[in-house]
Amino acid sequence: MRRSLSLLFLALNAAAYSQQKGTENLVQYVKPIIGTQRMGHTYPGATAPFGMVQLSPDTDTIPYEMNGKYNGDVYKYCAGYQYDDKTIVGFSHTHFSGTGHSDLGDFLIIPTVGDLQLNPGTAENPTSGYRSPFSHNNETAEAGYYKVKLDRYNIEAELTATTRVGLHQYTFPKSDNAHIILDLMAGIYNYDDKNVWTFMRVENDTLVTGYRQTNGWGRTRTVYFAMSFSKPIAEYGNKNFDKKQAYHGFWGKFDQSKNFPEIAGKQFRAYFNFKTTEGEKIKIKFALSPVSTANALMNMRAEIPGWDFEKVKSDVQNAWQNELQKITIQSQSKEEKENFYTSMYHAFINPITYMDVDGSYKGIDQNVHKADGFTNYTVFSLWDTYRALHPFFNLIQPKRNADMVQSMLAHYDQSAEHMLPVWSHYANENWCMSGYHSVSVLADAIVKDNATFDANRALNACITTSGFRRFDGLGYYIDKGYVPCDKTGTSVSTTLEYAYDDWCIAQAAKKLGNTKVYDEYMKRSENYRNVFDPSIGYMRPRYSDGKFREKFDVLSTNDQGFIEGNAWNFSFFVPHDPASLITMMGGKKRFVQHLDSLFTMELPDKYFAETEDITRDGIIGNYVHGNEPAHHVAYLYNWTDQPWKTQERVRMILKKQYRSTPDGLGGNDDCGQMSAWYIFTTLGFYPVAPGSDQYAIGSPAIDGAVLHLENGKTFTIEVNNQSDKNVYVKKVLLNGQQLNRLYITHSEIMNGGKISFYMSDKHGK
Amino acid sequence: MRRSLSLLFLALNAAAYSQQKGTENLVQYVKPIIGTQRMGHTYPGATAPFGMVQLSPDTDTIPYEMNGKYNGDVYKYCAGYQYDDKTIVGFSHTHFSGTGHSDLGDFLIIPTVGDLQLNPGTAENPTSGYRSPFSHNNETAEAGYYKVKLDRYNIEAELTATTRVGLHQYTFPKSDNAHIILDLMAGIYNYDDKNVWTFMRVENDTLVTGYRQTNGWGRTRTVYFAMSFSKPIAEYGNKNFDKKQAYHGFWGKFDQSKNFPEIAGKQFRAYFNFKTTEGEKIKIKFALSPVSTANALMNMRAEIPGWDFEKVKSDVQNAWQNELQKITIQSQSKEEKENFYTSMYHAFINPITYMDVDGSYKGIDQNVHKADGFTNYTVFSLWDTYRALHPFFNLIQPKRNADMVQSMLAHYDQSAEHMLPVWSHYANENWCMSGYHSVSVLADAIVKDNATFDANRALNACITTSGFRRFDGLGYYIDKGYVPCDKTGTSVSTTLEYAYDDWCIAQAAKKLGNTKVYDEYMKRSENYRNVFDPSIGYMRPRYSDGKFREKFDVLSTNDQGFIEGNAWNFSFFVPHDPASLITMMGGKKRFVQHLDSLFTMELPDKYFAETEDITRDGIIGNYVHGNEPAHHVAYLYNWTDQPWKTQERVRMILKKQYRSTPDGLGGNDDCGQMSAWYIFTTLGFYPVAPGSDQYAIGSPAIDGAVLHLENGKTFTIEVNNQSDKNVYVKKVLLNGQQLNRLYITHSEIMNGGKISFYMSDKHGK
Repeated sequence: MRRSLSLLFLALNAAAYSQQKGTENLVQYVKPIIGTQRMGHTYPGATAPFGMVQLSPDTDTIPYEMNGKYNGDVYKYCAGYQYDDKTIVGFSHTHFSGTGHSDLGDFLIIPTVGDLQLNPGTAENPTSGYRSPFSHNNETAEAGYYKVKLDRYNIEAELTATTRVGLHQYTFPKSDNAHIILDLMAGIYNYDDKNVWTFMRVENDTLVTGYRQTNGWGRTRTVYFAMSFSKPIAEYGNKNFDKKQAYHGFWGKFDQSKNFPEIAGKQFRAYFNFKTTEGEKIKIKFALSPVSTANALMNMRAEIPGWDFEKVKSDVQNAWQNELQKITIQSQSKEEKENFYTSMYHAFINPITYMDVDGSYKGIDQNVHKADGFTNYTVFSLWDTYRALHPFFNLIQPKRNADMVQSMLAHYDQSAEHMLPVWSHYANENWCMSGYHSVSVLADAIVKDNATFDANRALNACITTSGFRRFDGLGYYIDKGYVPCDKTGTSVSTTLEYAYDDWCIAQAAKKLGNTKVYDEYMKRSENYRNVFDPSIGYMRPRYSDGKFREKFDVLSTNDQGFIEGNAWNFSFFVPHDPASLITMMGGKKRFVQHLDSLFTMELPDKYFAETEDITRDGIIGNYVHGNEPAHHVAYLYNWTDQPWKTQERVRMILKKQYRSTPDGLGGNDDCGQMSAWYIFTTLGFYPVAPGSDQYAIGSPAIDGAVLHLENGKTFTIEVNNQSDKNVYVKKVLLNGQQLNRLYITHSEIMNGGKISFYMSDKHGK
Repeated sequence: MRRSLSLLFLALNAAAYSQQKGTENLVQYVKPIIGTQRMGHTYPGATAPFGMVQLSPDTDTIPYEMNGKYNGDVYKYCAGYQYDDKTIVGFSHTHFSGTGHSDLGDFLIIPTVGDLQLNPGTAENPTSGYRSPFSHNNETAEAGYYKVKLDRYNIEAELTATTRVGLHQYTFPKSDNAHIILDLMAGIYNYDDKNVWTFMRVENDTLVTGYRQTNGWGRTRTVYFAMSFSKPIAEYGNKNFDKKQAYHGFWGKFDQSKNFPEIAGKQFRAYFNFKTTEGEKIKIKFALSPVSTANALMNMRAEIPGWDFEKVKSDVQNAWQNELQKITIQSQSKEEKENFYTSMYHAFINPITYMDVDGSYKGIDQNVHKADGFTNYTVFSLWDTYRALHPFFNLIQPKRNADMVQSMLAHYDQSAEHMLPVWSHYANENWCMSGYHSVSVLADAIVKDNATFDANRALNACITTSGFRRFDGLGYYIDKGYVPCDKTGTSVSTTLEYAYDDWCIAQAAKKLGNTKVYDEYMKRSENYRNVFDPSIGYMRPRYSDGKFREKFDVLSTNDQGFIEGNAWNFSFFVPHDPASLITMMGGKKRFVQHLDSLFTMELPDKYFAETEDITRDGIIGNYVHGNEPAHHVAYLYNWTDQPWKTQERVRMILKKQYRSTPDGLGGNDDCGQMSAWYIFTTLGFYPVAPGSDQYAIGSPAIDGAVLHLENGKTFTIEVNNQSDKNVYVKKVLLNGQQLNRLYITHSEIMNGGKISFYMSDKHGK
């Protein structure tokens, strides 16, 4: 209870704060529609900052398989919504933001009038089911608010949300035959057996509870709900689509399909009937819980006690304003502001709050736990987000980031494998992607003095995690110093990632004064050398016997020993020691040539097809911004004699990869990692190696900014003479003193003060 | 914790009490093997009194369907064990006792040596799987203890149990290749889709946790476990039998089949390997919980902290002694004592304790609740047990019976239908059989001054339950005074049962001074008259329009409007008003002739095939003791001029239907109802109409008994001159005064004292 009240308090504070400081309304610049076309994989619906509920329209329900084979189209629908679609299937309550795989789409609701239809129908023939055509002309997507007209039914649908509760408001025409459909079969990345079990109880004529248990990307996942109607249900029922009903004794003594209050099965859809007058609004509060229907109801009552849609909308938008105004920027460009604040918005969606208002959540051990003294979060897409998102949180959301670390430590404590999370959500470890990058997040927080958690406990968790020999070639890595290519398919990238992660552990140990661990892991962090083939100048797959693999294509992403990247890109992946990398690769001059080639070469067509996650726009030369492994690469010029090329390149990437349009993202936003890159880069600096306290200086793309830090201090970024042409940094002053280095430190920012950039259209030395 | 300590305390007390009073060891007379052959549906394994764990061998795994059709053989295996079988598949932890339908058989374990086999094999060809032949010569079944030699493996298996924990002790031969198999696919009444989900975690080298979720007779049922080995696991693994694996991202980076600690799916079997020396004992503690694996572990630690098998066995047998010695009997016949104390044993198995040591349990609303001030029970087979078992509990287990009522009230509070239980277990309402007989249990407790619960709340629950119009023809019954045969298949028996149940509600209301409810329900209780056809003298199906059904066979059980009985038997079903029934059926003389015919007529062969639940031995004339509706019938002579025929008949039934052999039960024990009938009848009296405080006097079949009542008083039954021939009651004294009526009252027993029967071989008036 306390927690939800404090959210409200924050929200009210936000409005007051905004008024008091005279901050402009920043919510106006958030365009959730950005990234919903093509490969951004964002969703346009309503969510609170880091909210458990993501209430958003789904424009198609794509089966994972067609005729027993993987259905390629399914990838498009990771967020449930594709801008080019003409119909809306309904509004579901959970969505990933920007991922390249999915799950979720729980509890799809659609209001209809006329004959009851209990199947979604097809996009080609919407009237074959319940879906409705819609038009972007009748669609509004704001932070925390979404509105659309369902053309077929002449129903206006409005959605808003608190942290744990979605609020629907449907404005009906007059009808004696109005329905609210609750489709418990619907889901994103759906397939026949995905629904393990669903359960629904009609508790009384306005309250329905239940749960959905799925075997999806998350192998064992259950979400509980409580659903309250603003108007009593006239009658209700369901249709069961199970292939076969199990034997249930004497259930036959009831007609279970109509007005029977307790339904369970693998596949069913429910409906609730109403009579409506012209313009009548029916509202639905839909609360989630990871623990129980009782807790979902508790969440509902705590967060939305009444039925005031406008108030809930205004509260959530105030909460967004409060988050957005942590950075105020100066820019003449509305598009720049839209890009910036939409990036802030996308950065503040994941990880999501994963506990009830009383702190209860289901752990990966399937038991119910209480978060003691922290907010528990889930959705850790760590291979993506350790790079810039968590460092961004350390800067601008340090309290939340420390709580995320606590959440990861709780996962570690509850994990059967005794590992920190790799890609986890909703009491599941999905084991997606490579490395054990949670150690980067922990080390970054420790090194940056944001360890409100027990730092030594965190270090021990890192050490244990990095010692789980049976994980993805790790035993070989420990024994041989590299993962042999005859043992795993991504042996080289995994070796490189382990080496970086080990350096992070060393940094944490150093900060905590543990020399022994520092020495051990610094040694491990040099393992990147073991997969470098000096004869060709690239990282290269290597067999157990030490020989490099002969058949090898440095441009191909397929089956070359790398994940989401080729040897060209991954050969730059030594973020923790660029200087040694440069030496290893032949010195600064040769390294610059190599970097230049990356950005300028003509990648033969055949390699495009391999880059799964990204559109052609996401590729610059052979640099693939839509995939994360190269996110630090443009900043590596800083370690050469030509740092101005960093300035030039990052400005080019900003322009090419981020636009304020539905198709404005060059690749998956990946839970905010792409957005965090944008924000850092726009502000003029970037964390090349999280776990270090340094930010490499780039080229600020706005006219100034103020960081309102959680410690009460402000850090002002003054940018003089910046423009699309004036991308080169002539001079930097830190608190009035000339800065004679190419980085600033975390503490320099956190102490408050001012950095002044002086920009030019000509590069300096 | 307190609760489990108090169990221990009771057990220790039992031993002390037994010693102190010089009571003989009664556990020696318990033969759990009685009823395991043919249709008794009891199990021979280990359980504590009213225990959550029933750890017992299963002799076959019968699929519910074969080639898409119901497999008739499955009925034999309701309790998992059939005496005539030659092989044991393994030992599972949950079993119903005596039911005519099943579920359960959770968590089957078998120890093996030699090549690992992960399928059960067939009875015909045991070596095709892991099952082992066994011999009854090497088998011991006692209360709370079971032992058998697995011939194939030369392993001695011993089982014992506390309330919530099963304890296995396996004595191995020397082997480098010893296994403990945990079959999470096994189950009783199994079919393809029954396993909804199973989950297993190897927490460390001696502890495994997990759960099994099934869609069986109980539609949504989950049991959690914690399993501890006395010896560290050398290695472990599992085999997945799912038809198809869902897409799980990057799980492929592990070999999940071996030494991977977290397994989930619909169909898998796990194994744990050991090396054993000759005669080495490996023990397994296996704790259950309805709530979570954490609670299962809590239960384990509370109930069996150490590894002393003999102590656990001795404790549970002391607990049994404590329960059994609540009635001490005098008899020269060892068989009589075996029948009596095995009946006591079978009566004290169900309902089972359904909460963790801290009082947590999962309610029918799927939420976790805490039992506040009572022990929560489940497995309510009320159509059977309201007749004699719950009345027996009111007499000899009043505290438990009041707690069972509390459990039923909790079910009512949590039920979506707002009904008291019909046939409920493990957070499920199975809706099995007819009537709302829970009201009989509540009324009986209220009328007999055993309402430690809130009696008015209970009465309200009865009224609400009896008003749920959509339940099984109830709306028609309320409107028309009978259930029309064009509306349900069991219209007549259901009408009769509702009428009796309504009388129970009236009795409770009367006791509580609620005249309005009393009057209303007394009126409803006369509804039995509406299905009586005076033209033929039988109860008869009636259409909505009031006409009796023409096509009608009074001997047939099939499709005649009755459940588990024909018109002949059910026409006697007015237990609450035999006098009116007799008048309605033509007076005492004609009624006696009719009753005599019931017991003596030759039932044509074709009708035997219809009596599903019982063997031919279970039928006496047309009286079917194996089915419950006639259980009160032999006592109806008491309302005629020939009460001695009651005495004669009940003694004949005792002899014919109860024997101290594996095939000694004439029909399903039905959760103790058949046993409770035996106990009452053997003691010389029977509750013809629960909800009344009267017991009809029959013919005591022993030489005396002492009831050690919970209130500290004793009630002594003195029987003079009783023998197999001297079955007639010549005279009865109550506390020395001649009893001039054919019943005694509940309070006469509870006040303590003595009843003296004087028996003769000639019947009196």
